[in-house]
Amino acid sequence: MPGNSFGELFRVTTAGVSHGPGYVVILDGCPPGLPLAVEDLLPDLQRRRPGQSRLVTQRKEADLPEIWSGVFDGKTDGTSIGIVFRNTDQRSQDYSDIKEKYRPGHADFTFDAKYGLRDYRGGGRSSARETICRVAAGAVAKKVLAQHGIRIVGYVKQVGTVIASIPDPTSVTLEQVEATPVRCPDPEAADRMIALIEEVRKDQDSIGGVSELVATGVPAGLGEPVFDKLKADLAKALLSLPAVTAFEYGAGFAVATARGSENNDLFIRKGERIGTETNRHGGMLGGISSGEPIVCRVAIKPTSSLSRSQRTVTRSGEPTEIATRGRHDPCLLPRFVPMGEAMLALTLVDHWLRWRAQCDFAR
Amino acid sequence: MPGNSFGELFRVTTAGVSHGPGYVVILDGCPPGLPLAVEDLLPDLQRRRPGQSRLVTQRKEADLPEIWSGVFDGKTDGTSIGIVFRNTDQRSQDYSDIKEKYRPGHADFTFDAKYGLRDYRGGGRSSARETICRVAAGAVAKKVLAQHGIRIVGYVKQVGTVIASIPDPTSVTLEQVEATPVRCPDPEAADRMIALIEEVRKDQDSIGGVSELVATGVPAGLGEPVFDKLKADLAKALLSLPAVTAFEYGAGFAVATARGSENNDLFIRKGERIGTETNRHGGMLGGISSGEPIVCRVAIKPTSSLSRSQRTVTRSGEPTEIATRGRHDPCLLPRFVPMGEAMLALTLVDHWLRWRAQCDFAR
Amino acid sequence: MPGNSFGELFRVTTAGVSHGPGYVVILDGCPPGLPLAVEDLLPDLQRRRPGQSRLVTQRKEADLPEIWSGVFDGKTDGTSIGIVFRNTDQRSQDYSDIKEKYRPGHADFTFDAKYGLRDYRGGGRSSARETICRVAAGAVAKKVLAQHGIRIVGYVKQVGTVIASIPDPTSVTLEQVEATPVRCPDPEAADRMIALIEEVRKDQDSIGGVSELVATGVPAGLGEPVFDKLKADLAKALLSLPAVTAFEYGAGFAVATARGSENNDLFIRKGERIGTETNRHGGMLGGISSGEPIVCRVAIKPTSSLSRSQRTVTRSGEPTEIATRGRHDPCLLPRFVPMGEAMLALTLVDHWLRWRAQCDFAR
Amino acid sequence: MPGNSFGELFRVTTAGVSHGPGYVVILDGCPPGLPLAVEDLLPDLQRRRPGQSRLVTQRKEADLPEIWSGVFDGKTDGTSIGIVFRNTDQRSQDYSDIKEKYRPGHADFTFDAKYGLRDYRGGGRSSARETICRVAAGAVAKKVLAQHGIRIVGYVKQVGTVIASIPDPTSVTLEQVEATPVRCPDPEAADRMIALIEEVRKDQDSIGGVSELVATGVPAGLGEPVFDKLKADLAKALLSLPAVTAFEYGAGFAVATARGSENNDLFIRKGERIGTETNRHGGMLGGISSGEPIVCRVAIKPTSSLSRSQRTVTRSGEPTEIATRGRHDPCLLPRFVPMGEAMLALTLVDHWLRWRAQCDFAR
Repeated sequence: MPGNSFGELFRVTTAGVSHGPGYVVILDGCPPGLPLAVEDLLPDLQRRRPGQSRLVTQRKEADLPEIWSGVFDGKTDGTSIGIVFRNTDQRSQDYSDIKEKYRPGHADFTFDAKYGLRDYRGGGRSSARETICRVAAGAVAKKVLAQHGIRIVGYVKQVGTVIASIPDPTSVTLEQVEATPVRCPDPEAADRMIALIEEVRKDQDSIGGVSELVATGVPAGLGEPVFDKLKADLAKALLSLPAVTAFEYGAGFAVATARGSENNDLFIRKGERIGTETNRHGGMLGGISSGEPIVCRVAIKPTSSLSRSQRTVTRSGEPTEIATRGRHDPCLLPRFVPMGEAMLALTLVDHWLRWRAQCDFAR
Repeated sequence: MPGNSFGELFRVTTAGVSHGPGYVVILDGCPPGLPLAVEDLLPDLQRRRPGQSRLVTQRKEADLPEIWSGVFDGKTDGTSIGIVFRNTDQRSQDYSDIKEKYRPGHADFTFDAKYGLRDYRGGGRSSARETICRVAAGAVAKKVLAQHGIRIVGYVKQVGTVIASIPDPTSVTLEQVEATPVRCPDPEAADRMIALIEEVRKDQDSIGGVSELVATGVPAGLGEPVFDKLKADLAKALLSLPAVTAFEYGAGFAVATARGSENNDLFIRKGERIGTETNRHGGMLGGISSGEPIVCRVAIKPTSSLSRSQRTVTRSGEPTEIATRGRHDPCLLPRFVPMGEAMLALTLVDHWLRWRAQCDFAR
Repeated sequence: MPGNSFGELFRVTTAGVSHGPGYVVILDGCPPGLPLAVEDLLPDLQRRRPGQSRLVTQRKEADLPEIWSGVFDGKTDGTSIGIVFRNTDQRSQDYSDIKEKYRPGHADFTFDAKYGLRDYRGGGRSSARETICRVAAGAVAKKVLAQHGIRIVGYVKQVGTVIASIPDPTSVTLEQVEATPVRCPDPEAADRMIALIEEVRKDQDSIGGVSELVATGVPAGLGEPVFDKLKADLAKALLSLPAVTAFEYGAGFAVATARGSENNDLFIRKGERIGTETNRHGGMLGGISSGEPIVCRVAIKPTSSLSRSQRTVTRSGEPTEIATRGRHDPCLLPRFVPMGEAMLALTLVDHWLRWRAQCDFAR
Repeated sequence: MPGNSFGELFRVTTAGVSHGPGYVVILDGCPPGLPLAVEDLLPDLQRRRPGQSRLVTQRKEADLPEIWSGVFDGKTDGTSIGIVFRNTDQRSQDYSDIKEKYRPGHADFTFDAKYGLRDYRGGGRSSARETICRVAAGAVAKKVLAQHGIRIVGYVKQVGTVIASIPDPTSVTLEQVEATPVRCPDPEAADRMIALIEEVRKDQDSIGGVSELVATGVPAGLGEPVFDKLKADLAKALLSLPAVTAFEYGAGFAVATARGSENNDLFIRKGERIGTETNRHGGMLGGISSGEPIVCRVAIKPTSSLSRSQRTVTRSGEPTEIATRGRHDPCLLPRFVPMGEAMLALTLVDHWLRWRAQCDFAR
């Protein structure tokens, strides 16, 4: 199917561009009877919003969702949920530069190569503003998961060379994450990250980082053998976000230097259930959740838009230079957190429904 | 849809277990008119096969595919391609250990948790032997891609702490890869990898590593904006393989410490086409292929099966120990290469057909 | 996937209810470069609209679509097309009857049984007003088809016992169809249909009928063997419309009494191409288009809503009576025509893109 | 996705041709824990088999399925079920006629037009022999449904002008159906059908008919609003079978002449549940099952293969004649019954799993 949908049973489909009238989201397959209101969507949309702090872009967007269908008398009614966002910050702009020149690191060239034309206003469909749709859908997914004891937390693990110390990823709270504008629950590292981001901004530059995402309360048994392993669908979900260049779960790339005797997590009894002594497997074995917390990490590249001048070419291939006007995040990490959480939540709900369909029988 | 299929338009569906009668693969959506014979599948199946060298397991499996349909008079005829493998090495074995005890690092526990029962003979459906189906399908995908100038090469980049020096991933040849049993095109590193694997084997242990995969000749324009980005589908494809714990493309996790001014690849004219000066973007921008080579890497964990004893629990949670009998790869990397290539090929063919459907118009 | 999407490669997804803020449509997979404007959607939306004549309901709905994305500089740009309709005729109403009583022939009871709750305002998601989304999407599909010489025409073939005489379905024009308010190209039958509908309306009753749909210019080769036969997907497309209870193509149910020697269409040469002497096969053989015109028919039941009183039960099962307030079509057929055409067009575009992906190679 | 798969959650994928080594079926998504053995598949395969009586073709095919995976210790284990059939009756034949000439009513021409080549041996992929795969999968589906009280019965309703009298479709038993070789539970009509088929056979001709299919015990709530209505998916399922040219449910085409006051089924209390007084709606309202029995009918065309000579053209368009050698059913109806039942069962299981996933919550 075409590429604007995500999920098999809990399916999000989106349309919209950053400088058109707005965005539309259709969320299909949500169980009926879930209490849901616009207010449930606002906190994560607020976390995603530009202009929250000096660390992120100062553009103002209202990002107020309207729920047009699928909710009746305060509850989901099982039919498709239509959510609409109107773009409010569409001041007339001069797009002549972006129209004719390919911004390094952006999708301008590849859209032209693919479609033969592109909506160049603010990046059109390639604008990261499309993630408001994901964050809204993710907020619904989180509510479904919460009903079943599954909790999602994400945070900033690394900015540049500053790496947070998070002794226990599974005990990080939303409050700790939101305590600093950089969304890093290690306050000391957060300070250094903020300083680094400020420095980078002054250089008219940007900086990358790593976000860690955790799901607790996930029952054993989610994920499909072979192609739709939970780890595979999580990787897809997170790599589908703009600027994400890498994914790992559990020990991740560190397994390359590990021996089997070190890397294997030994099974033990944990009260009523069977678990593992350690969690280098990041909560997934054979692509199926093990009952241990799911822990994964993604790398986010430094913002491609720079206010300093960069060499590039025009559509016809002539050498030129471009400097991105407008305000852009010097570091994408703080605003990434709710996006990553949303994709983790959407993936888990989808697999949870798949499990319900096939495997809730035997019990 | 259930999890035993891969691809939207070039779709592989598989069934089979390691200790049953055999495996079946159905490959749907292959363009008609492609010359195809069993011989086309054999080279990659041979590369995947156990027992090729002392570095890999000595089990003997014939792995001879039979093409039952979809090919007529030596050419694909557009209908579904049915491929059948018969298991030949099914000597009677004592499974009492694996039946009652959960092997660390394996899917025994998660299958039981998901389905309430499991085929414990040799891992059943979770056996990595299912990858013969992928490798066979991948060989067909490679032939389709080759018709259009797209070439796939994979190799071992790292085993333990031994890292190969590959100055130009895009110039590595199949011959260089196959020149050493460890499938590392850097001969000096290959020697050290072999020594390390031998050492690990003697310790009744195993070791992880990293494989790098490259596609050249990929036209700009493959991949879908938003959810089905090429990078996202590649990540899913590769994470769907057993033992893969991490994926990165281009600069990958290294973007975390990079500044935008370093990380952006600048556009230049390259003869008739527009390209980039460097390829830190691994051939994908905005999730769409840029025309530059696609380069990605995955981490593979050390084999979970160890002949040394490991602590674990029984199905009822009683502490016990288990040592895996039989021969197992001390390092999965050499045999991983054709599997990784297959998933890369399958992903590219699928997106190439999607591009044909929607975007081949405008030209 | 959930049930609010249609199509594999040209995919429509919808949300919205009749008495909420409006409807949203996302159309994904449309080829880029197609000239498209709101004006292209209006004619069919106008044909679908209530209040066009005395034969149909007198409710006034503006049905003005807004295209929010996917069209740039007057052309589709290959990204998802977001279309929004605002409901304008939402006067406050008394829903106490429909809230508590199950309307005969409607989905009130089955929605309650399925979801445990329902939006009872005007039928909520089960309202036939959702077909505005299909008709808008179908108008885009028709434009794509027209670029490739495929033309769609539908009309009313039968109302009650009045059956139109249409000697050659393939020569019926849109003008002929639109010449009468009942959309029957046989003027004499049209008069009798109109008289019958007037009579039925006076009786506070309704009447069923048959619509015939024709596609000309369809190349041979569309449709997939086995499960996704073109005839199968057409049947699904048309049965997915409200009130449709039967589908047949070509000779349809009449094959039951035919002998093979009568029913087989003999192949002949037709200029450059091979065709058939007759078209009892309705343009599809083995589920694949033959190059002959596609001809099919559907039955539409009499409107379930009646202003006369009908016996029914309340939600708790108590016997009661209900008479539908408001104006309703005494016969659904005239307004059905653009809906049927839309589903035929959407099915054909989808299969045409699938053919492009797999089979446009060999040429 | 390509066209050799059916179902969203209970998915059948098939490959194979009539004159190759055999057929393969992959059944994905079956709930674990279902007792299953080859013996469960044999009865319906036997009913589908040629050579059961003089009414059907005398070809002998063993049709013995082998279950290669997905069943362990006598129960489904939740992984993909691989089923293999070997073709046994592949005597060398002279295909020169069918290779060069297009058989009227067959898919020879449309396959050539679509793919540019075709496997002409016995119809290749277009052979109705592929229905063994559906019947095997349908037998599994029936077992799942039976566990939940859902029962499927099909029978022959009409052959030529002979129409059976079936006062209560919902009380027909398998024994009644199997009591006559024509599978018509009205013994008197069965006799006349048999006489008619014998007469047609002597004329080297064939005859069409109608089959009626019934599902009882279906709970209210299966089927999705809008596009994936249960009636729509049933229509697709049944039209995907070879030779089916029409589908109707409940009153079907008869609604065309009905008034709303006659056609509406009135809701009444039926013990603990709410039901309808009559069942002209065939068990589906708004595309969702109502709890009343599902009743539908399909028309099957007379066999296209005739041993008498028919005019046609060669691949290059030259006029010629063709008479089909070998034995063919003079009437497809008796063998159709298990095929129709299979598709009904597969559709219901799929929607039942979809309901489990989304709607089993609220309870």
